[in-house]
Amino acid sequence: MASHVIDFSLLGNNFSTPEMRTIWSETNRLKKQAKVEVALAVAQGELGVIPKEAADAIAFAIDVDTLDLEAMAKDGALMKHSLMATIKALQAQCGQAGEFIHYGVTTQDIVDTATVLQLKEAFNVIEQDVNSLIKELTVLSEKHKHTFMVGRTHGMQALPTTFGFKVAIWLDEFLRHAERLANIKQRVLVGNVSGAICTYASLGEIGPEVENRTLTLLELGTPNIGWQSARDRLSEFGSICALISGTLGKIGNEFYNLMRTEINEIEEPFSEGKVGSTTMPHKRNPALLEGLASLTQPILSSVGLLFQSMHVEHERDAMSWRAEWIALPEICLYLSAQLKGAIHIIQGIKVNKERMLLNLQSQGGLLLSEKVMFEIGLKLGKQTAHQLVYEAAMLAFETDRPFKDILMAHPKLKAILNQDELDLWLKPESYVGAAILKNEYILKISKTYLESKTSNVTTY
Amino acid sequence: MASHVIDFSLLGNNFSTPEMRTIWSETNRLKKQAKVEVALAVAQGELGVIPKEAADAIAFAIDVDTLDLEAMAKDGALMKHSLMATIKALQAQCGQAGEFIHYGVTTQDIVDTATVLQLKEAFNVIEQDVNSLIKELTVLSEKHKHTFMVGRTHGMQALPTTFGFKVAIWLDEFLRHAERLANIKQRVLVGNVSGAICTYASLGEIGPEVENRTLTLLELGTPNIGWQSARDRLSEFGSICALISGTLGKIGNEFYNLMRTEINEIEEPFSEGKVGSTTMPHKRNPALLEGLASLTQPILSSVGLLFQSMHVEHERDAMSWRAEWIALPEICLYLSAQLKGAIHIIQGIKVNKERMLLNLQSQGGLLLSEKVMFEIGLKLGKQTAHQLVYEAAMLAFETDRPFKDILMAHPKLKAILNQDELDLWLKPESYVGAAILKNEYILKISKTYLESKTSNVTTY
Amino acid sequence: MASHVIDFSLLGNNFSTPEMRTIWSETNRLKKQAKVEVALAVAQGELGVIPKEAADAIAFAIDVDTLDLEAMAKDGALMKHSLMATIKALQAQCGQAGEFIHYGVTTQDIVDTATVLQLKEAFNVIEQDVNSLIKELTVLSEKHKHTFMVGRTHGMQALPTTFGFKVAIWLDEFLRHAERLANIKQRVLVGNVSGAICTYASLGEIGPEVENRTLTLLELGTPNIGWQSARDRLSEFGSICALISGTLGKIGNEFYNLMRTEINEIEEPFSEGKVGSTTMPHKRNPALLEGLASLTQPILSSVGLLFQSMHVEHERDAMSWRAEWIALPEICLYLSAQLKGAIHIIQGIKVNKERMLLNLQSQGGLLLSEKVMFEIGLKLGKQTAHQLVYEAAMLAFETDRPFKDILMAHPKLKAILNQDELDLWLKPESYVGAAILKNEYILKISKTYLESKTSNVTTY
Amino acid sequence: MASHVIDFSLLGNNFSTPEMRTIWSETNRLKKQAKVEVALAVAQGELGVIPKEAADAIAFAIDVDTLDLEAMAKDGALMKHSLMATIKALQAQCGQAGEFIHYGVTTQDIVDTATVLQLKEAFNVIEQDVNSLIKELTVLSEKHKHTFMVGRTHGMQALPTTFGFKVAIWLDEFLRHAERLANIKQRVLVGNVSGAICTYASLGEIGPEVENRTLTLLELGTPNIGWQSARDRLSEFGSICALISGTLGKIGNEFYNLMRTEINEIEEPFSEGKVGSTTMPHKRNPALLEGLASLTQPILSSVGLLFQSMHVEHERDAMSWRAEWIALPEICLYLSAQLKGAIHIIQGIKVNKERMLLNLQSQGGLLLSEKVMFEIGLKLGKQTAHQLVYEAAMLAFETDRPFKDILMAHPKLKAILNQDELDLWLKPESYVGAAILKNEYILKISKTYLESKTSNVTTY
Repeated sequence: MASHVIDFSLLGNNFSTPEMRTIWSETNRLKKQAKVEVALAVAQGELGVIPKEAADAIAFAIDVDTLDLEAMAKDGALMKHSLMATIKALQAQCGQAGEFIHYGVTTQDIVDTATVLQLKEAFNVIEQDVNSLIKELTVLSEKHKHTFMVGRTHGMQALPTTFGFKVAIWLDEFLRHAERLANIKQRVLVGNVSGAICTYASLGEIGPEVENRTLTLLELGTPNIGWQSARDRLSEFGSICALISGTLGKIGNEFYNLMRTEINEIEEPFSEGKVGSTTMPHKRNPALLEGLASLTQPILSSVGLLFQSMHVEHERDAMSWRAEWIALPEICLYLSAQLKGAIHIIQGIKVNKERMLLNLQSQGGLLLSEKVMFEIGLKLGKQTAHQLVYEAAMLAFETDRPFKDILMAHPKLKAILNQDELDLWLKPESYVGAAILKNEYILKISKTYLESKTSNVTTY
Repeated sequence: MASHVIDFSLLGNNFSTPEMRTIWSETNRLKKQAKVEVALAVAQGELGVIPKEAADAIAFAIDVDTLDLEAMAKDGALMKHSLMATIKALQAQCGQAGEFIHYGVTTQDIVDTATVLQLKEAFNVIEQDVNSLIKELTVLSEKHKHTFMVGRTHGMQALPTTFGFKVAIWLDEFLRHAERLANIKQRVLVGNVSGAICTYASLGEIGPEVENRTLTLLELGTPNIGWQSARDRLSEFGSICALISGTLGKIGNEFYNLMRTEINEIEEPFSEGKVGSTTMPHKRNPALLEGLASLTQPILSSVGLLFQSMHVEHERDAMSWRAEWIALPEICLYLSAQLKGAIHIIQGIKVNKERMLLNLQSQGGLLLSEKVMFEIGLKLGKQTAHQLVYEAAMLAFETDRPFKDILMAHPKLKAILNQDELDLWLKPESYVGAAILKNEYILKISKTYLESKTSNVTTY
Repeated sequence: MASHVIDFSLLGNNFSTPEMRTIWSETNRLKKQAKVEVALAVAQGELGVIPKEAADAIAFAIDVDTLDLEAMAKDGALMKHSLMATIKALQAQCGQAGEFIHYGVTTQDIVDTATVLQLKEAFNVIEQDVNSLIKELTVLSEKHKHTFMVGRTHGMQALPTTFGFKVAIWLDEFLRHAERLANIKQRVLVGNVSGAICTYASLGEIGPEVENRTLTLLELGTPNIGWQSARDRLSEFGSICALISGTLGKIGNEFYNLMRTEINEIEEPFSEGKVGSTTMPHKRNPALLEGLASLTQPILSSVGLLFQSMHVEHERDAMSWRAEWIALPEICLYLSAQLKGAIHIIQGIKVNKERMLLNLQSQGGLLLSEKVMFEIGLKLGKQTAHQLVYEAAMLAFETDRPFKDILMAHPKLKAILNQDELDLWLKPESYVGAAILKNEYILKISKTYLESKTSNVTTY
Repeated sequence: MASHVIDFSLLGNNFSTPEMRTIWSETNRLKKQAKVEVALAVAQGELGVIPKEAADAIAFAIDVDTLDLEAMAKDGALMKHSLMATIKALQAQCGQAGEFIHYGVTTQDIVDTATVLQLKEAFNVIEQDVNSLIKELTVLSEKHKHTFMVGRTHGMQALPTTFGFKVAIWLDEFLRHAERLANIKQRVLVGNVSGAICTYASLGEIGPEVENRTLTLLELGTPNIGWQSARDRLSEFGSICALISGTLGKIGNEFYNLMRTEINEIEEPFSEGKVGSTTMPHKRNPALLEGLASLTQPILSSVGLLFQSMHVEHERDAMSWRAEWIALPEICLYLSAQLKGAIHIIQGIKVNKERMLLNLQSQGGLLLSEKVMFEIGLKLGKQTAHQLVYEAAMLAFETDRPFKDILMAHPKLKAILNQDELDLWLKPESYVGAAILKNEYILKISKTYLESKTSNVTTY
């Protein structure tokens, strides 16, 4: 029974998804390692490095599903080596041809390339989820282009805005994330088959050709030079995941705050049977939102660990690996839970428009103090207006009287104000600036992006 | 099949131990939660909060081993709640009395207290391993009290020292760790049963008594006041683990460096059948040492995450938990692998005394430049001596000539030096200062400590 | 002009305090290094290691205030050595006796011991601030023992509590912090004067005596054995600071949330002249609270860095130092800003009791659903009651009708409920359990602690 | 006097460079803020938002050099606001026109855009340093294309390689870093002038035009939508710096290890007057290398902190800022010290070819065990050969006898081996595989890159 919460029956899905767990499972790891060994043998058969028949036999015989994992684990413990037991087991499947498995390469070649195969599967899932989320955010932002609500800074009501505009900022952020993933994809998804210290010593000058053919068979990129001691690609991948997770955590936290009892502007998707509290029957907790918000810290932590793995000594060491074996899967596992969670939340979020309007009114006009200041500023100068309106606002706040009344009664202001104009200034809907314009602008960009993705769908 | 490397068949033991995995397994988690529910019922039965017969029935009926974990996982997913499925399953075991399970408490009471029960098991394992390591370090340090070797600073040979002295510094560090564990044990191993927001609202003024009785039954401490929103204890525990792990990683790295081909002063325990490299037959890799050295970064990373969980909003939130559910087990799991690894290494380390002596001689006397400087300083003043000896040392280094020859030929020095005296000064064994004295001092302290532990062994 | 924000004229006080900046200033660093050199000379004079007159001359001559720091910086850059320029400058002040400065010791002896002298000053400031904060929290908690307010979990209203009880939990946490500081003080404030690789090679067996005398003169502890390669003490100090900062950040964030426009239960101390926003005159931002809340992350980050410095190679290296030189001061500097900020905030916090009462009523009785469930549970069984009251609560929530009306109309409940009893159950004040009792208990403990501090004040 | 080591006279240059300190100095911060205010006024003058004459007057009058920083600091402390004091002081410089300073914008607009102006300066310095380093690595790698040396894995001698090949891997890594910087430059160097909550409320629909004109004047990019609550760009920049720093730290550590007394294959540039140790005259410490190696941890720590700043609440908060104000400059400051240090080291590194050859021979042929195994494998099959050669290697290792003798005496091998062939197999130069080929390949790529940079130099 698992000891890490990622693999718990009851809790695991709060921390990952079945899909991503399968990708990073020990089984898939072994499958990918076997796949690399087979591709290597096939490539070497084609290039005459090993007998063609041996290559064919290996390709035919290897079957990961029938390996006895438990026996391998015991064997591995005895040999204190992470791959040797696997090679032995594969070799046993191939009979005579087994001598040509793992020919002229080193453990790290197989382990690293197999890891990149797993990473490619994870990358594709993340990329697709990011695109799905872009689609959902586009729908949500469009739907609420005219949903007025309070904008807040420092936790305090600041100015009116729209819900669509708020979402558009997230959408813009996710469009950047998609661009980032596109930027790094080719740079990151690169294998490595170059021997003990990346010199191809055992294969000699045909080595690079063997590597290129093997990686082409595996549909991975070929590096300019071996990277056993240069692990920057993995950290780069991790850092983009950190950025994506940063946005997701922020969205989770934002909704969590907007769902507070006292704000109550949104509610997370509620499904029948969900239990808020074992003891407080009235509680409807933002469980999904807290889940979304809470996974950013673990990812940042794992990314920090992954960065540490860049520190490799000499041509290779086994200290940096461990950080990778821990952190790279963790990042993907947690992130997948966040992404799927976010898609589900964005699809089902309930927006409480009435409450948004009520909250806009709750400060008796104070929310529009900037507008009033600017209008007055046109007459008295901006800094002067700031001072006067500041005084009026503070008085309204301290005395809990309506801002409008204070303004109309103000000795220096009453002369230049009139009631109708002031009413107009204090209407929230008239003070969202270019929010709707910008919202539309981002929607246009995101739609163009989504169309390009759809039209490319076959070659994607 | 597990997706986190801690639970891998082939690799898991490089990252943890079976013992610690059992402690943090989902099964043990459920067992401990059940144990808390039972203790609560028993306490409430004793205090008349629930019927005595119901309490007895609960204590009799609950049997974690027969729970259908899979069904519970499905149920939990439906309810989107981490404990409710467990309560339901336990309740089903108790028939009528089931109504009195989880009476007047909240989820967090059970989950937190159960976690502390797991933590107590982990704490005891760590404490015992620290004591075992103190014992092994004591043996090793004593054995090598007179094993002379090169001391190095900045990676460069600096002055002679002894291997026993080097180990004594680690021993002193571990004695501090033992003291730290003793300092925090009572403060950390404290449960919590105080209701939804720690006010014992549902139980009223008898609440604290119920809590105290429940925790006493569970052999945990009772807090002064509830800590659902005050998670400092767990972070404190984690930070001590970070200190312990810091020392362990340093030892691993130190041995790794001393085992380098070019230094070759120690070798890690070598077991028959161990494979160094799949491709380089001559390699005997420091696999255990790299394992020991490499687990500090993951632990530091998890401790960093655990600290984040101190950030709780209001009376409780579910965001800080997740960091704990991830980080607390991870810290214990990785640390146990480090501790057991270190004990095994310290027990079996091979010390290559001949090579240590050779390395002491390898710089042709330069290693004793300080000694020479001090002796000359008695005649010419310290700063002057530093300048003259510095010049001679640099010349010896640049020309690769013996330091002694340079000194005897130096225009300003030859007059005040004589051959025999110089030979004496250049003997490494005569220049280890108070190293052996200090080594003995630490051994005395550690033996006193170990005796106190042995005599207390029954009450430990 | 400074490039790090800690030393900015305009912003520096948001990140530190003048007091703590003075402690960690380059000037104080130099002063402390000179102080160590003087104490060493005095000790060596007393023990006959150097001539008594030389020791006296050094003690008399050294005057940090007249050193030409700029010239020393140039010199230091040339020598690429952090202490040599200082030694040369001190030597120049001492004339002939200068030859006996820094006699038989290594750079690290001076630098480390001087750092611990600075650390001791910082430690004392932190300890005093923690005690001041305990005092202020005690006052605040006592004052609001009967101030009823909403308790919240997951950001949602949960149950009634009191403001005093909330503060009492922080107070309990700070009492633990005080205990922690007391636990580690002696262990941490320990100097080191043991030569190049801690063997006292140049001084021989009198070395430990010289060290002990020097450190006694400096009022620091003497280590059992040198710690040039064992830096756990500093990380231990840092980790306690992380715990303290974790609580402070949590308090800052809690108040920030309670000050939200829509909650409005507290307000941070407001001083005349404070400007909320350059553009929104009505804004009264929680600037102090955000400052308090925001410094925890930098401290956690610096503590993480400090932990890295435990990784020392061989007898010493210069890589781990840098992390200490950065992180140790940072931790103290940020923490001092947090502590002073917290003291100021706790002293001046405005508590809006009326709003607290309004918020308690805002959900039309739903807040007391647990109470209702328990009372009904006495008649129908707890799990049954949970189900019925859950349905009623959800209905009240969905239809926005008063909870009481729903309950009285419920087909299964109306028979067993009566109006008066229900009114009583729905009174928040009657449902705070043992909160006031526990509050008083913590106050008693904290007062006992504070009295012990006062009575010890002379020997402290 | 500064309290952060970055700004220390004696040590500051170990942690940063004068150039980068100037960029992030408080003075430059103020200058850039003034520059933004002026550009804003000019843009608003052009677009008729404020009177053209006011704009001209502002542009003419503002002079940062004559501001009284001390008075401003006092004022800022009183107002508890980071920009208001600056605005007031600038306003005072402009007389009547001062009313139109900071028109229709919010503090964050100015502060963020000014920060990006500083960041642009820092970005350019980093970009140029990366290019310089690519040039130096190209020179070094080319020079040592045929310098044979030991390749090491797990700290143990593994196979022969060349020094040029080792450097080529770093070069390849830096070419990726250059590509990364190019990828992100436009995305990151983007200002923001959109008002209190990014809606341009005070300027209305002309807002985006004002922003675009202002940012064009400042030679910054214009965002699609405001990013006050979307800080991913800064974290992205930081993460690329982490990758660069990771490589630099690795190089520093690699050279540190190669300079060890017992390996002695390289030496860091040594300048006259440099002091290794205050007490050990013979020491030539790798001070520059330790400096290079040690700054990666602080940068990773600051990047971790920077990532935390992505967590923004609502439309803006002041908690995430602080992390940026600390971490963003720190990253640039430390990285600049690393980059300049690396350039200096790569330019001046002394390569000890003779020692490299000696080290290649030091294991009596064991280094070529893989070669021997492959040659034998052609006759006996690979796995069989691995087993036989492994036995021979272990025997050579255990008995310290020459590998060749063991092989020639081996009962199963002697029949198929002949002396001359074996001698050839054991020649290190003949077993570097495709290392030289790959070295040349990377050099070709880097030269092409450098040429593209040179030809673009005017438009760069």
